[in-house]
Amino acid sequence: MTKPLRIAIAGLGTVGGGVLRLLTENAALLQQRCGRPLEVVAVSARDRARDRGTPTGHLRWSEDPVALAADPDVDLVVELIGGSEGPARALVEAAIARGKPVVTANKALLAHHGTALATAAEAAGVPLLWEAAVAGGIPAIKAIREGLSGNAIAQVSGILNGTCNYILTEMLETKRDFAEVLAEAQRLGFAEADPSFDIDGIDTAHKLALLTALAFGAQPDFRAVKVSGIRHVSALDIEYAQELGYRIKLLGVARRTPHGIDQRVEAVMVPRAAPLAQVSGVFNAVVVQGNASDRIVLQGRGAGAGPTASAVVADIVDIARSRALPVFGIPATALGTSAPAPESPESAYYLRLMVVDKPGVVADIASALRDARISIESLLQRGRSPGEAVPVVLTTHATTEAALRQALEAIAAQKSVLEQPRFIRIEAD
Amino acid sequence: MTKPLRIAIAGLGTVGGGVLRLLTENAALLQQRCGRPLEVVAVSARDRARDRGTPTGHLRWSEDPVALAADPDVDLVVELIGGSEGPARALVEAAIARGKPVVTANKALLAHHGTALATAAEAAGVPLLWEAAVAGGIPAIKAIREGLSGNAIAQVSGILNGTCNYILTEMLETKRDFAEVLAEAQRLGFAEADPSFDIDGIDTAHKLALLTALAFGAQPDFRAVKVSGIRHVSALDIEYAQELGYRIKLLGVARRTPHGIDQRVEAVMVPRAAPLAQVSGVFNAVVVQGNASDRIVLQGRGAGAGPTASAVVADIVDIARSRALPVFGIPATALGTSAPAPESPESAYYLRLMVVDKPGVVADIASALRDARISIESLLQRGRSPGEAVPVVLTTHATTEAALRQALEAIAAQKSVLEQPRFIRIEAD
Repeated sequence: MTKPLRIAIAGLGTVGGGVLRLLTENAALLQQRCGRPLEVVAVSARDRARDRGTPTGHLRWSEDPVALAADPDVDLVVELIGGSEGPARALVEAAIARGKPVVTANKALLAHHGTALATAAEAAGVPLLWEAAVAGGIPAIKAIREGLSGNAIAQVSGILNGTCNYILTEMLETKRDFAEVLAEAQRLGFAEADPSFDIDGIDTAHKLALLTALAFGAQPDFRAVKVSGIRHVSALDIEYAQELGYRIKLLGVARRTPHGIDQRVEAVMVPRAAPLAQVSGVFNAVVVQGNASDRIVLQGRGAGAGPTASAVVADIVDIARSRALPVFGIPATALGTSAPAPESPESAYYLRLMVVDKPGVVADIASALRDARISIESLLQRGRSPGEAVPVVLTTHATTEAALRQALEAIAAQKSVLEQPRFIRIEAD
Repeated sequence: MTKPLRIAIAGLGTVGGGVLRLLTENAALLQQRCGRPLEVVAVSARDRARDRGTPTGHLRWSEDPVALAADPDVDLVVELIGGSEGPARALVEAAIARGKPVVTANKALLAHHGTALATAAEAAGVPLLWEAAVAGGIPAIKAIREGLSGNAIAQVSGILNGTCNYILTEMLETKRDFAEVLAEAQRLGFAEADPSFDIDGIDTAHKLALLTALAFGAQPDFRAVKVSGIRHVSALDIEYAQELGYRIKLLGVARRTPHGIDQRVEAVMVPRAAPLAQVSGVFNAVVVQGNASDRIVLQGRGAGAGPTASAVVADIVDIARSRALPVFGIPATALGTSAPAPESPESAYYLRLMVVDKPGVVADIASALRDARISIESLLQRGRSPGEAVPVVLTTHATTEAALRQALEAIAAQKSVLEQPRFIRIEAD
């Protein structure tokens, strides 16, 4: 029999346990696909007693995850510790230094140190694979790195955080406000006690930085992503979006512009018929626009033990049967910069203003937009309450963010405008 | 500079021309991704004069496509001739025999001779890649063979023929009947003059046989697929489907059953909210149900010069930078049979009967269903025209096809039933 591929796993939480179970459950099938057995020989995890749904007594346990890289009986290291620094980073660096292939689900690590790690891995001829770092069970990394390798990619976008998509879906379906739905999501375990990482867009931005690197052959650069989250999305905006034929989604969008790569994570409105508008609840989706393939949409579960294990094991199988590809699709030494485009691309916008209901208010708003050369696509002023506060909702034709901010400043200064104007970008599709 | 990968292309129709243009347009990018240039050096095509949108004068032209395999200056052969026999088959066999990697878009060839070709290719250590044979620009083959390689797959299904999906979408949107929409599709170039290959499900069945092979590690076997098409789908059925909350789609569905693999191509009803129900017009989609990933949905363009070229070039890039994987995911010598399951899985059904509108008719129908142990989920009898022909529409709970046929035979024999009953299987999702 061919010699097994001997695997060490650092981190046996939800995902690590899922990987252990999947490697056991599908062992025969995986052996057939790899041409040799996959065997977990060593692990490192804080809690040794925890039930992982599969026997772990026969495994070598290491207190120090980094020691797994030095274990002469380990061929491949799976890093599931998480975090951009500390033991996760040390383990990946140590494994590469010892010429051992690495599989990781660690988006933060790669979004911050991806170029250095890829450079080291490629210099050592060692595969460093990270399918599980983005979009869970959806084989999006493989699809972009290999399946769509014939294409120059113009744009990659996605719903990359299930917590945010769950909250926005619930807000739409139950007409409740953000805080209430977040509290419920926390009770149900769909959101963390400290939800900032998810709802402020940071997790999505880590993933987007990696998709950008792969799609555009650029160094992953978390700091180049313009990030906002979903805290400011109100039930009222969701209702207006619905009425105007849109859905509000937290998207990561990276596009090639003539002046650089524009990467942004923000709550945007997408037309209800667009593929990303139809992705509900905890599901994720990735959309790639290739110059030959046209638009490709990939959907599935973005998190959870099974889907994430599916991605981790696919990477292990790849290492068992293929040779190393560049970590970000082209040699790390050839990666361009992902310095942000100085000007963001033009876009249509949704605006919501709270104004005093009296004659001339709309004329003043329209004048401010005209002065910024922004053209109005639609205007809604619901109900009448003379002298009271009423919402005015507008959608604009494509304009620059600079022009929009200029107009909003002028509008906010008007006496009849009662609150800071709210705006949401409209994605074409 | 690293030596270029020297490519020969047999067949310069829509797809071949697309491949030539894509290799030219994205040359710099592809060289970066492959680590060496991709260079087309020889071609074979009937019409030398045709404009392919890119210069072809510098290429060596061969009258005989099979001769490309023998050309010592060719490293890789791209077969875009089509057809399960003749020069396409001869060329692929010759290339493998000479140890040259092959990229093909030929579903018919692989559905009929896949096992033999895979066996030969693997014995020779030669890659044989076929991403373009199924679902055009969607990297579905890569996704199943590699991206989802950690999973035991329970079911794979898809909308795999753009012509059929276009016709069914048009029938729904314009409420016209099949013949009229087909004629229009032929005028517009969306359907062939002889449309049988598409509308009778044969093209879908070729593709399904390949997905089955890959998903279940079984020999591709076109003859094991139960095939029907869309000729019998009426505007009336589409209208009732809509009313009942379904869409009618021509699906290829392969599922693992306890007694074998059930492969069928047929027009089925899918719930309107299901991902495949939302794929309209010429678009394709593939759905994979993995035991770890859960459901993964891949959507995009299933045909056309750009999308198909995207798939062909991805395979070329793979060959330029990876080593050969088994053609159907596991060694060809280990592939199981895809002998059909003796019993098809249970399913719900939609039935439409034309009956004389008189008391007792529904009771007689219900009795026949009861005698076959089929339980009724819903029944619709619209309008009243005593003594005239009216449609009765039923949906059933899950039953076997054998029980259904027994019941339909009894129903067809009833005097008040005026036409052969029509039935359409309902897919759960």
